[in-house]
Amino acid sequence: MTAAVPTSTLEQWREHIETCLTQWLTPSPGPASTLEEAMRYAALGGGKRIRPILSMAAAQASGGGPDEGLVPGCAVELIHAYSLVHDDLPAMDDDALRRGKPTVHIAFDEATAVLVGDALQTLAFEQLAANDRVPTATALAMVQHLARASGRSGMAGGQAIDLSLVGETPDLAMLETMHRHKTGALIETSILLGVLASGRDVDGDLGNRLQQYGRALGLAFQVRDDLLDIEGDTDHIGKPQGSDEARNKPTYPAILGIDGAREHLQALEREAHQSLDGLGPEADTLRDLIARIVYRRH
Amino acid sequence: MTAAVPTSTLEQWREHIETCLTQWLTPSPGPASTLEEAMRYAALGGGKRIRPILSMAAAQASGGGPDEGLVPGCAVELIHAYSLVHDDLPAMDDDALRRGKPTVHIAFDEATAVLVGDALQTLAFEQLAANDRVPTATALAMVQHLARASGRSGMAGGQAIDLSLVGETPDLAMLETMHRHKTGALIETSILLGVLASGRDVDGDLGNRLQQYGRALGLAFQVRDDLLDIEGDTDHIGKPQGSDEARNKPTYPAILGIDGAREHLQALEREAHQSLDGLGPEADTLRDLIARIVYRRH
Repeated sequence: MTAAVPTSTLEQWREHIETCLTQWLTPSPGPASTLEEAMRYAALGGGKRIRPILSMAAAQASGGGPDEGLVPGCAVELIHAYSLVHDDLPAMDDDALRRGKPTVHIAFDEATAVLVGDALQTLAFEQLAANDRVPTATALAMVQHLARASGRSGMAGGQAIDLSLVGETPDLAMLETMHRHKTGALIETSILLGVLASGRDVDGDLGNRLQQYGRALGLAFQVRDDLLDIEGDTDHIGKPQGSDEARNKPTYPAILGIDGAREHLQALEREAHQSLDGLGPEADTLRDLIARIVYRRH
Repeated sequence: MTAAVPTSTLEQWREHIETCLTQWLTPSPGPASTLEEAMRYAALGGGKRIRPILSMAAAQASGGGPDEGLVPGCAVELIHAYSLVHDDLPAMDDDALRRGKPTVHIAFDEATAVLVGDALQTLAFEQLAANDRVPTATALAMVQHLARASGRSGMAGGQAIDLSLVGETPDLAMLETMHRHKTGALIETSILLGVLASGRDVDGDLGNRLQQYGRALGLAFQVRDDLLDIEGDTDHIGKPQGSDEARNKPTYPAILGIDGAREHLQALEREAHQSLDGLGPEADTLRDLIARIVYRRH
């Protein structure tokens, strides 16, 4: 059964996340003010904040306080935010809308959008390295985990695979490989950083369970995304409905059919739940997040 | 007087740098092979390697062996390499040639060039955090220094200032502010990381001297760059001669005149030398590098 974590708890977490990100993006007196304004535009006041919420829930599930996962979670969120800005560029997905607002290269210009993504990535590592709530060895391990999940063997590698698949008809295994790199690596890492933040080891039984949880949840997130692109409307998803299909992007429904994709989603939902079996009520927020992701409307 | 460090010593250092970067960019068996090939294209087999050489020379000047500066220097070099790939993009400087070869977005495509820059930045932090030749606290401090020098308050901020100055006629102070961010911050950091790598403190007298050296050298590098754009030929500088002028980019010669820029360069050369007064022969490579930068032909 899904535990009922009050929505107000998650709303409160989101407030902490916004506060943290806002503080990191405080304007400096320097002459690069347009860049800083564009960075705030890209990273603040939008987004579901799933990654930092997962870090906080993982810190909680590991026996710590949720706020211990705040700094690493927000660092992951900056990596996510940078990737969206670059993904939206004309040379990449060429998207004019993101979360219902003009994308950064439309609201500012393309050169600024390139720099915004670059500087958001840098800021993620800067803040993660400056986290003095954990021992230096832990902070350093977090930098390594985040870098591995973001770079050529993680998110950026996944985007390269994605580019190579446009117009192709990959099989399910290749589609999963792409998603496990492109979005899965960062979602798994959100969770691992939460475990590390609470002072626990990521190689133990708890770490393995939460990693399995993250893997299933990351894929579930993506299957749901593909289904929303078919079922959703532009208003809710913040981008034109059917845009993946129009672009001939490979999707779960294209490979499995709509019913097959829905069944796949349910199987991943079960896997995520099962990975938490044996954990106590401290994992209830993680349990609750499964349903929120699987049944989200945008 | 300039010390005479044999060119063969620097050639040997360059070999160590190429070996280190080549190892970091070893192809992985994953499916993102085009991205990895493009990363190697961008980062290997070219470049003067001034930043890692400075890290090695700074480690030596701080009483360590030059190879102690190798890992941090190569991490700075990856940040530099990523910035060139993004700088060359059509939305930025729109350059088709770099070091006499087609730029990454020409040799591959624009989307790949965006990802190459992104992933090279990530790799810099990944490798810097994985440097087990220094204590964890030192490795973490290096990540923080490199991030601050690369991001909105450093290199990326300088690029944003640069964008805002095209078509403007800034005064000398604004031009220096731009260059101190855009190229100076990374050059200074190459040196600071070399000091840290040798186990020395960057806040002491040595750190202050080398920081002053780095500041003067970074500006000298830029003044020389501007002069080369007027005096050099396309063959030597690897990009069309006069391209700054054609683009209406602000330059030292435009503000100070050619003779004024040459005098400014000599003043910076003196400042760099004076900052090393009182240091022994262990700083000879740093002394030697001043002349190599001030009188370089490309």
